[in-house]
Amino acid sequence: MRWEEVNNQTCSIARSITFFGDRWTLLILREIFLKVRRFSDLQKSLEISRHRLSDRLSRLVEVDILYKEIYDEKRNRFEYKLTEKGLDLYPIILSIVKWGDKWETDKDGAPMEYIHKDCGKSISPVLSCSECGEELHARNTMAQIGPGITKKIARGEDINIDLSKYSAQISPKEPS
Amino acid sequence: MRWEEVNNQTCSIARSITFFGDRWTLLILREIFLKVRRFSDLQKSLEISRHRLSDRLSRLVEVDILYKEIYDEKRNRFEYKLTEKGLDLYPIILSIVKWGDKWETDKDGAPMEYIHKDCGKSISPVLSCSECGEELHARNTMAQIGPGITKKIARGEDINIDLSKYSAQISPKEPS
Repeated sequence: MRWEEVNNQTCSIARSITFFGDRWTLLILREIFLKVRRFSDLQKSLEISRHRLSDRLSRLVEVDILYKEIYDEKRNRFEYKLTEKGLDLYPIILSIVKWGDKWETDKDGAPMEYIHKDCGKSISPVLSCSECGEELHARNTMAQIGPGITKKIARGEDINIDLSKYSAQISPKEPS
Repeated sequence: MRWEEVNNQTCSIARSITFFGDRWTLLILREIFLKVRRFSDLQKSLEISRHRLSDRLSRLVEVDILYKEIYDEKRNRFEYKLTEKGLDLYPIILSIVKWGDKWETDKDGAPMEYIHKDCGKSISPVLSCSECGEELHARNTMAQIGPGITKKIARGEDINIDLSKYSAQISPKEPS
């Protein structure tokens, strides 16, 4: 499969990572979440080529994760800011931080600490169940085919995923 | 900065994405979380070249995210399974799913549903504060320099990050 075809899969992971699943893009987003918003500052901070940075920023604007806001009209200079869709990537970033802090930190401890402004404490993010509040992890959570797939199958459409490989693991439901 | 240098940054995001911040690697991990564990099955499922798949799997074994387990000794065939370090990537995967379901799903709805086995319900994952339990998002959480950086500065070591760019956003603490 060519990478360009991955976005056609009926899969939220595949679709998502065509937007930000690129190493430089993730570092650019890290900087912008830390409010480094100008092209020259991003370039200096990441020591990245102008071409590569420009390419990634254009793509992020195109898919509505960033938008450009003029801060100097005379010189036509602008900053890159996060849209609501972009701000919504924060839980992914924080989950990556948590994993890195746990598995790849040296004996000095976490490079950064995170403060929950509402309670004022230094925190660790916990992924929890929307229904009962308990922590979610690989062993207590399972996937099953959802409406985005069953409805397409019912209409005879191509979902670009071979479901047979999952048959033992996820439970198909009747198309509704 | 060359990509190889990114891992030297004192940053949990940079360190983490040198391990899995690659588009194919994320798709391979998705498959393995869905229990597609054999080379030939992964290759068929992802329509990926043998060379590329082999390269990514070797790397994941090398960094202790996957391990190989023999299932047919005579033919020396093995499966790729997730280590504890690998299983711990699940909250990142689920956070990506949540973002994709919200922002990139068509009108049919989510392709997959996730069941929390302990409470039995179809759930949405929520990133919450370890201290007060409230939901964390970009606007109510802030970063500050942690011990992994202050201790290195106190010893005069290079952290490979220019902190001055963050001065307005994150609060440096005294080295402890």
